[in-house]
Amino acid sequence: MNIPSAFWLVPVASVAALGMAWFFFRQMMHEEEGTPRMKEIAGHVRRGAMAYLKQQYKVVGAVFVILALVFAFMAYVLHVQNPWVPFAFLTGGLFSGLAGFFGMKTATYASARTANAARQGLNKGLKIAFRSGAVMGLVVVGLGLLDIAIWFLVLSYFYNGDSMALVTITTTMLTFGMGASTQALFARVGGGIYTKAADVGADLVGKVEANIPEDDPRNPATIADNVGDNVGDVAGMGADLYESYCGSILSTAALGATAFALNGEMQLKAVIAPMIIASVGIFLSLLGIFLVRTKEGATMKDLLHSLGLGTNVSAILIAIASFIILYMLQLDNWLGMSFSVVTGLLAGVIIGQGTEYYTSHTYKPTQSIAESSQTGAATVIIKGIGTGMISTMIPVITISVAIIMSYLCANHFDLSMNAESISKGLYGIGIAAVGMLSTLGITLATDAYGPIADNAGGNAEMSELGEEVRHRTDALDALGNTTAATGKGFAIGSAALTALALLASYVEEIKIAMIRAADEGKIFVDNLGETFNPATANMIDYMNFFQVNLMNPKVLVGAFIGGMSAFLFCGLTMGAVGRAAQTMVEEVRRQFREIKGILEGKATPDYGRCVEISTRSAQREMIFPSLLAIIIPIAVGIILGVAGVMGLLVGGLTAGFTLAVFMANAGGAWDNAKKMVEEGNFGGKGSDCHKATIVGDTVGDPFKDTSGPSLNILIKLMSMVSIVMAGLTIAFI
Amino acid sequence: MNIPSAFWLVPVASVAALGMAWFFFRQMMHEEEGTPRMKEIAGHVRRGAMAYLKQQYKVVGAVFVILALVFAFMAYVLHVQNPWVPFAFLTGGLFSGLAGFFGMKTATYASARTANAARQGLNKGLKIAFRSGAVMGLVVVGLGLLDIAIWFLVLSYFYNGDSMALVTITTTMLTFGMGASTQALFARVGGGIYTKAADVGADLVGKVEANIPEDDPRNPATIADNVGDNVGDVAGMGADLYESYCGSILSTAALGATAFALNGEMQLKAVIAPMIIASVGIFLSLLGIFLVRTKEGATMKDLLHSLGLGTNVSAILIAIASFIILYMLQLDNWLGMSFSVVTGLLAGVIIGQGTEYYTSHTYKPTQSIAESSQTGAATVIIKGIGTGMISTMIPVITISVAIIMSYLCANHFDLSMNAESISKGLYGIGIAAVGMLSTLGITLATDAYGPIADNAGGNAEMSELGEEVRHRTDALDALGNTTAATGKGFAIGSAALTALALLASYVEEIKIAMIRAADEGKIFVDNLGETFNPATANMIDYMNFFQVNLMNPKVLVGAFIGGMSAFLFCGLTMGAVGRAAQTMVEEVRRQFREIKGILEGKATPDYGRCVEISTRSAQREMIFPSLLAIIIPIAVGIILGVAGVMGLLVGGLTAGFTLAVFMANAGGAWDNAKKMVEEGNFGGKGSDCHKATIVGDTVGDPFKDTSGPSLNILIKLMSMVSIVMAGLTIAFI
Repeated sequence: MNIPSAFWLVPVASVAALGMAWFFFRQMMHEEEGTPRMKEIAGHVRRGAMAYLKQQYKVVGAVFVILALVFAFMAYVLHVQNPWVPFAFLTGGLFSGLAGFFGMKTATYASARTANAARQGLNKGLKIAFRSGAVMGLVVVGLGLLDIAIWFLVLSYFYNGDSMALVTITTTMLTFGMGASTQALFARVGGGIYTKAADVGADLVGKVEANIPEDDPRNPATIADNVGDNVGDVAGMGADLYESYCGSILSTAALGATAFALNGEMQLKAVIAPMIIASVGIFLSLLGIFLVRTKEGATMKDLLHSLGLGTNVSAILIAIASFIILYMLQLDNWLGMSFSVVTGLLAGVIIGQGTEYYTSHTYKPTQSIAESSQTGAATVIIKGIGTGMISTMIPVITISVAIIMSYLCANHFDLSMNAESISKGLYGIGIAAVGMLSTLGITLATDAYGPIADNAGGNAEMSELGEEVRHRTDALDALGNTTAATGKGFAIGSAALTALALLASYVEEIKIAMIRAADEGKIFVDNLGETFNPATANMIDYMNFFQVNLMNPKVLVGAFIGGMSAFLFCGLTMGAVGRAAQTMVEEVRRQFREIKGILEGKATPDYGRCVEISTRSAQREMIFPSLLAIIIPIAVGIILGVAGVMGLLVGGLTAGFTLAVFMANAGGAWDNAKKMVEEGNFGGKGSDCHKATIVGDTVGDPFKDTSGPSLNILIKLMSMVSIVMAGLTIAFI
Repeated sequence: MNIPSAFWLVPVASVAALGMAWFFFRQMMHEEEGTPRMKEIAGHVRRGAMAYLKQQYKVVGAVFVILALVFAFMAYVLHVQNPWVPFAFLTGGLFSGLAGFFGMKTATYASARTANAARQGLNKGLKIAFRSGAVMGLVVVGLGLLDIAIWFLVLSYFYNGDSMALVTITTTMLTFGMGASTQALFARVGGGIYTKAADVGADLVGKVEANIPEDDPRNPATIADNVGDNVGDVAGMGADLYESYCGSILSTAALGATAFALNGEMQLKAVIAPMIIASVGIFLSLLGIFLVRTKEGATMKDLLHSLGLGTNVSAILIAIASFIILYMLQLDNWLGMSFSVVTGLLAGVIIGQGTEYYTSHTYKPTQSIAESSQTGAATVIIKGIGTGMISTMIPVITISVAIIMSYLCANHFDLSMNAESISKGLYGIGIAAVGMLSTLGITLATDAYGPIADNAGGNAEMSELGEEVRHRTDALDALGNTTAATGKGFAIGSAALTALALLASYVEEIKIAMIRAADEGKIFVDNLGETFNPATANMIDYMNFFQVNLMNPKVLVGAFIGGMSAFLFCGLTMGAVGRAAQTMVEEVRRQFREIKGILEGKATPDYGRCVEISTRSAQREMIFPSLLAIIIPIAVGIILGVAGVMGLLVGGLTAGFTLAVFMANAGGAWDNAKKMVEEGNFGGKGSDCHKATIVGDTVGDPFKDTSGPSLNILIKLMSMVSIVMAGLTIAFI
């Protein structure tokens, strides 16, 4: 196949991202790590994190080997699977794991250096923490595009010729998303359980019972808590967004291959368009990263402005750039498609703003939660849950409008559906997701910056660096909390749009599986007894053939099970955190009781034991919920067929998205309500109100850092599993 | 039209139910009310409850008048509405209100009499409380069938002749369900806010701060708390189940009219079959009610056995009876249809058992919650939320299997869908719901028994009747908690099945509206430009015409908004309880502070002020969420059309059902975890563990008694509004 010259931008951008990530990493490594005590603490955290990751990758590796063998069996023995899938699956998992590994390695080296830099000044600290975060952002996008570029080139070499070639290439590439999703889910769930078991355990005994501050070196769980920030918030989030990034690009490419199947030239353009947008997004992210710098003596507001400037400039430029890119590509309806990209970007920003409104204590909702602490912990919980539930309105309406608008823009403002227009409209939804994630390089940098600043604070506290330094790291940390809201908006919004695009890709994958089956002699007969030709049928024909309408009980039952899956998954992960935290609490209590002089600071706590408990709990507890996410779509596919699977995916997506927003926002609001009280409101630190808000914050921990964010991946993984298992589903009809 | 003689069973059963209700009411009124102090307390509660209901009906009445005028305008001026709707809407609301009124009147008279009877013995107390509960059960089913019988006779007089006559009659009757739903939602939400504001307020200050027991006369909020049990748990639940009962019968009748439209004789049989099953169910419920009696000196186990005997015998007999009824009617595929009825009954029982497993402290899940109180309130909340979420699995899988099985049984074990079979399958789902609710007379009796026993306990405590009596009323109360689990299973399961049947009825209503519009000259053109004839099109044609498939962005956006509606609605009602409870807490604190000698029992608290606060809060707070439930489906219908509405209903149903189960079970589990600690485990009353479980129980209060159960109605009301507004939706296409 003739690779168009524009495509070469993809590997170039990928190499640029990885190169710059290496540059920022080296730059950070040249900084001083500080006092021996600081080095020691950082070493503890780093070793704990790496030990965890090693253990984690062992377990995940075993799962991957088993799954790859299953796929190989399906592909080479049963012939119900694309022969490339086992390899694509493995590379997806490998690259996702690498993204998490590099991000975390950087973060664990950066924390002490950030704390040390904060001794010299706020700006120096900001720069080191932010650039280290940027390593993560750039590694994720760089590896993502690298994987895409390599597979595209390899498959283009093997498939050639007719309009089906590009459809086959893109849908095959899509399956490496399943590897990425699977790895991401383990990373998120395992990391989420790890970090919250440690955090909840440290808080419950340390803060509430022993009345010692956060990150106090006397608390045995404090190292585990800092390790948790790295494995959960850095490695977990990196894997999550790697998966969204690749998923959105690949599903859009696959939709483009179908939507323009009748026009070979246009088809190729539609396939590479999302890749080009993402590539240009990398360069604009780099520009944004360099814009993040402040003058000496900057205030908090300046810092916030500086970070905002970077992300906003990138976002505005990519919006403008998409018009230019799509015009230059001369993509069909380039103007409308460009507006779809802008829709996606805008939706991300609005969801981020909404998140900030509902979780920042500069606004009414979180203030009311803090206020309700005057009547005790119960009213804090009631108010927080109520606020979280109400907060789902903005993201759901925004996503709804974005879906309709991106569909309309891509489809000449025509919402009626016919075989051709529906594919173009869905392509529009996909490209909106690509738009939302195009500047991931910088948005993820601001996100990964948070845990680095948090850890720097922990290091400063444990190394007893003095009030002023701790104040500076606190400021850096608070800044991270604010920018994280925007990051979460992008993560969750893009998951919804990507899942929708994957839903359409699922139908394509079913089509390919049916064509393969038909080639092998299988005959499909519809419910009126007429023969169904999978090769000539369009998307609407497929909907009719499988009766994927809302009067079909299989669709309805699928939707019920999809909604339930989201709740069940959250329930299991919440339960896991509860159990792990309880073990941690008992261990910390035991150490306080048995190690003499620990609370007077005369004896060193056994940090290692707590790290071990978190590691062991996370490994044990992550298996079942994660496997469930893989098994449910397979079982539904076998029992209820295509109609049931589509019901499942839609039910899981709608309930899962809403539940994810609810949990993330309730958790964030509780966290900040506690911070508000700690700032001296309603009695301040140590008061009854403070204790009530600590209960809220503790409940919110697994909400916002374990169950909530894992749902993003659950939604996508269920789609990915369905896509990869399409052949098996077809074998059963 | 020739009314078949079997139909006359319906009015007869209705009159029998109402007559027996009157008999039980008189019987109860002949009992002694006890000491002057008991009478005084009962009088306070009764007057508070009646005052509330009067206020409530005033507000609801105003809403009804406005809505009826809107419908009249739509019917007689715009001609987009069935001319009977304004009247049907009003009678539905009126009868629903009457059911709540009679049930509550009985309950408020029965509590002191139960307490007084408990002075003589456990069995006497049981009998009075249970028979008073039976008044409610019988009034609900009696009024329900009465309304159905009257409307059927009236409409049969006006419509006559062709196969469309019965379709028109049944779909018209369905619209009185909207009146019932609207009233029910106000009753549930208003009552739920009232009762939980009082309960949470009373607990937070009384139990936690002032350390006085529950129902202590020194607590100013205690009368309001007892009033709340009546207005929330009795009047609210009665209205809720009235609505489910009528909704399931009417939607099944409407589906029967369509499924057998080609065979006039069979059509009439299919329409009256659900009514006949319900009528026979009344007689079997009466039989069951008379079976509930124990010998003197019965143990708790005997009591439980006795109550269980009544409900189980009724359920088994109605299962057998349905085979006989449908055989005698010679309904097409009577054997399969009878199995559909049994499927529904079984599903109700299994969901009830599942609820008991997850909420009773004789089982592991609730025990773990109690155990987690050792690490504080936060872990109690985390564990409870996790357990509640996991507990959604049994009901969702049960309902899923019930949907598939009842569809299959009714459709000759054929799950493929074609125009004719789909209607029969959906009829099967409807008749499963009718089966589940057929013995409502007795299941509701066991449910309404709970708050009466609870109030009797309150009366005994406040009248200082002595240890032994209080022990007996406690035993009666505990019994009520156990049986309530089964009742909730039926309420929630039937809501899901009824909502599914209503979804199918919605398509019928759309068909009628389109035929009317076509008669007036409107021409419908499909997306291929061909003319669509609404009169000859079948259900599958409608699905295709409106493109109600899962690739349509309107359907997807509808589903998103539906899922969000459930969360938003819960968030608003949770917030309302939080605000109202806070006002109550401040008032109780004020009285403790300002009224001298109140805590020593020397001064009487100002009960009236607390009653007033609850009343005012409930009235103010119930309006917005309730109106939202009406406005959302109308807005979606106008903006996104039929496809959007169906997406909305499915999204709302799947997310709402799961959320409702989660909230109800988490709340129940917290309640019983607290009871377990109070029984002396983990330190018993007054310990830190007890305080932690009280936080859980307080959070669970609005979960299980306000937001959770209101969702049942929300799901059905959104369907009802869509059905009634079908004409308006069609006018916009």
